[in-house]
Amino acid sequence: MTTTTWNGAHRLLQAARARGIDICFANPGTTELTLVSALDDVPGIRPVLGLFEGVCTGAADGYARVSGKPALTLLHLGPGLANGLANLHNARRARSPVVNIVGDHATWHLPFDAPLTSDIDSFAKPVSKAVIHLRDGASLLAQLQEAFDIASGPNGAVVTVIAPTDVMDAKVADAAPALPAQAPGKDAVPDGDIAAVAAALSRKRPLILLLGADALTERGQRAAARVASALSARLLMESYPAIVSLGGDLPRLERLAYFPQDVLKQLGDATVVLVGAKAPVSYFGYEGQPSALVPSDRVIELSRPDQDSVAALETLAARMEVPALAAETAATPVVPSDTGGAGPLSPVDVVDDLIDRLPEGAIISLEGSTLGGPFLQRAYRARKHRVMTNTGGAIGQGLPCATGAALAAPGARVVSLQSDGSAQYTVQSLWTIAREKLPVTVIIAANHRYGILQTELKRADASIDGDVTGRLTRLDNPRVDWTALAQGYGVPAIRVASRRDLQQALEQGFDEEGPFLIQVDLP
Amino acid sequence: MTTTTWNGAHRLLQAARARGIDICFANPGTTELTLVSALDDVPGIRPVLGLFEGVCTGAADGYARVSGKPALTLLHLGPGLANGLANLHNARRARSPVVNIVGDHATWHLPFDAPLTSDIDSFAKPVSKAVIHLRDGASLLAQLQEAFDIASGPNGAVVTVIAPTDVMDAKVADAAPALPAQAPGKDAVPDGDIAAVAAALSRKRPLILLLGADALTERGQRAAARVASALSARLLMESYPAIVSLGGDLPRLERLAYFPQDVLKQLGDATVVLVGAKAPVSYFGYEGQPSALVPSDRVIELSRPDQDSVAALETLAARMEVPALAAETAATPVVPSDTGGAGPLSPVDVVDDLIDRLPEGAIISLEGSTLGGPFLQRAYRARKHRVMTNTGGAIGQGLPCATGAALAAPGARVVSLQSDGSAQYTVQSLWTIAREKLPVTVIIAANHRYGILQTELKRADASIDGDVTGRLTRLDNPRVDWTALAQGYGVPAIRVASRRDLQQALEQGFDEEGPFLIQVDLP
Repeated sequence: MTTTTWNGAHRLLQAARARGIDICFANPGTTELTLVSALDDVPGIRPVLGLFEGVCTGAADGYARVSGKPALTLLHLGPGLANGLANLHNARRARSPVVNIVGDHATWHLPFDAPLTSDIDSFAKPVSKAVIHLRDGASLLAQLQEAFDIASGPNGAVVTVIAPTDVMDAKVADAAPALPAQAPGKDAVPDGDIAAVAAALSRKRPLILLLGADALTERGQRAAARVASALSARLLMESYPAIVSLGGDLPRLERLAYFPQDVLKQLGDATVVLVGAKAPVSYFGYEGQPSALVPSDRVIELSRPDQDSVAALETLAARMEVPALAAETAATPVVPSDTGGAGPLSPVDVVDDLIDRLPEGAIISLEGSTLGGPFLQRAYRARKHRVMTNTGGAIGQGLPCATGAALAAPGARVVSLQSDGSAQYTVQSLWTIAREKLPVTVIIAANHRYGILQTELKRADASIDGDVTGRLTRLDNPRVDWTALAQGYGVPAIRVASRRDLQQALEQGFDEEGPFLIQVDLP
Repeated sequence: MTTTTWNGAHRLLQAARARGIDICFANPGTTELTLVSALDDVPGIRPVLGLFEGVCTGAADGYARVSGKPALTLLHLGPGLANGLANLHNARRARSPVVNIVGDHATWHLPFDAPLTSDIDSFAKPVSKAVIHLRDGASLLAQLQEAFDIASGPNGAVVTVIAPTDVMDAKVADAAPALPAQAPGKDAVPDGDIAAVAAALSRKRPLILLLGADALTERGQRAAARVASALSARLLMESYPAIVSLGGDLPRLERLAYFPQDVLKQLGDATVVLVGAKAPVSYFGYEGQPSALVPSDRVIELSRPDQDSVAALETLAARMEVPALAAETAATPVVPSDTGGAGPLSPVDVVDDLIDRLPEGAIISLEGSTLGGPFLQRAYRARKHRVMTNTGGAIGQGLPCATGAALAAPGARVVSLQSDGSAQYTVQSLWTIAREKLPVTVIIAANHRYGILQTELKRADASIDGDVTGRLTRLDNPRVDWTALAQGYGVPAIRVASRRDLQQALEQGFDEEGPFLIQVDLP
């Protein structure tokens, strides 16, 4: 390190490093170059380049979900932030801590309305728990401290930090002192509240425990299983968990359904106990269907997402005097007797073949319902693994989230289980995956249509074969060749249309040290 | 057409059609399906699907620049809008009329904070002159009328129209009546103001006419040339025109430089007459350099961008009694004596070979400085053509703008002259170009680096070879294979590294009825 004088950019990075941040997902421009240069001077923060900002923000989300730690992003003014917003929306819904650094013009240049000037605050607010404008070298540490504290609070949050070039360039007196680390952690559920819930539960049957947030960790699930066994309750997970452990000897979780009619049927007349989950609402509003899917008199809240659901469940189990349960019989994936053949593939075939071969400790980034639905129904049969889902519905989350997860968990196999339509929104992720040589196996369900839109049109008794409805829901003509795209970005790839080829491809992919893409042709 | 009852979506589209709108760039989701179905019932609006929203908004911008008419977009809630914001930022800076339709949840579903709920207004405001929430069937026509009027006002503008599903689904009494068309057009510069400018000009030397907006049309330039000849003034165009006619017998225009030092040198002590252009400001703020590049006492405004610069120039010329000038000698592109060879290519080689072969009436979408800078210096030598540039600096504008231009000008050859870094942000455009079989020749300057960032680092005496500065400005390792990406999206492609191969590829591309991509390897 040859730097002898420090500037605002150094101080920002030193403060981040002092708070344990070790990675920065960047797509910089001219206004971020002082920060780029400073990354060369401040050791310990790994720079990862994305060719598009949605790759960076989605990777920061995935990194946070797997590591529990915030990552930095580095984006270029309002338009760079704009390109990253969709995945910040998902990060917000996942309650992922992200410190989202957005460079800006020098403060004295802003009044001149140069081409790249825009209202960054207005872009940032919908996804950010706080938007902080760095003011000057003297205030910088306190402002960053605030940013890290909010991002790593009981609810993880996106905090957008706007870094003007003059503040980054300004000399500061010395290197940043160590920042007091904030003890991260969720708020405790008061004992009295747990006692009240226990009393209320004793009078209600049937019961469902709906698990979200940290209730979906291994320890949370085991405590939930104890409570459920004492109450003869069913265990459900929220529809779109940020991250959930599944398989192996973990309890089998039903997934909360998607369409309101299905949720109503699934829940029946049960009382729903919320454990780190929100009360079920319909994903979209449908005429004639309720938005809130459980009447409030059938909802009991044990813990909010910002509260410590694990401790609450363990306290509740202890209060009920439920002994630790024998773990579920560890699932032993069985290679199906149908080991191949050249017939066409179904989504369930793909999921079964994946589950049979999924390495212990794998992390799945799941986007799209074609494979995602069947996978979550059958994941209990796999070796123990973790699954991340699209929490906010902003598509283009799967590939970037897989990228961030692989960087957060070196040594783990990451599988990006992905629909072809949604994969397009952040297809540039493939380049970052190739560049960083990440062990990501990408499985593209290539049905060349927006399947969910065709399903919705059918549900509404509308045609899917009109000139326009056809044109706007089919992705054929031309069909995207995913193996060519992968090759273009430096990821080896193969296309399969039969079960035998799929099984071979999965084995080949899991043998690769780096990435591999499998285009699975589906009807 | 089998529809016998009309709903809000029909009415919206009927109103758009009545106002002359004939195209909709769409990336719909569940909340937009009523509008998708309605497009099947209301004839005359061509649906064009983009695989990413930035393709749709950039195409709407390009369509507007070439046709002068607004296009519709159709985007999916806040996250879909978010993905389209960067190119709406460019559209705003281009003063392009765009009616940006964003679907939303049913109004009665919004309070339940379903996953895709977000603050759409906050996302939309920075790029929109107005954000209009459609309220109900009864108000819809008046609200749309307002949207079209604002979008097509003297300054073209982006208007965001938020369309909740319940308002789109609601039955309306009848088909929409024809809307009174607003006479589009710019405001006239008052004669007295023109007289005052004429008087002021008579006392100032040297003079520069800085042309922007409609002063860059053919008629505007010819009138400007008359004025310039009477005043011995130089003719400059703004740095980033939305669209400018060049070549053939048009006057030769200098382009306003990029870096402030270069602009100060270029302008010298001249008085700058603004004709549809804003006073020059530095693109970024640099310590020690001014933001405003001309002192206010050396600026005279003939016309603002929202005013009729053509009429103002013609009135001024008439007042000065300048006769019509003989047209410039029409440039006859000369095939350079160096017709090939196998040596490495330079950007100037690429530009020269393109200019020599550029068909009359072509439209160039230009993004990135590697080829863009040399092209705009030498374009006067080409056959008459039009050039669109990146008006707002939000990168990822070139390919979508080319897409929209090709749809607005059937029969014209469109060239997307594109740097490789910026092409990545909306690479999905290639699929829409292939699907619509558009005559777009894409030329990718493949130098595998963010050249502008390396230039800026050098200007700041910073290293470009540090671990991080190297990593974040070089796009090698792996190098993107653009021919593979093009093939993946259905666009035929070739890679060239010598002048002879480039010339053959250009001729092959211009012979194609549909698209063709040329990856030009540059050092």
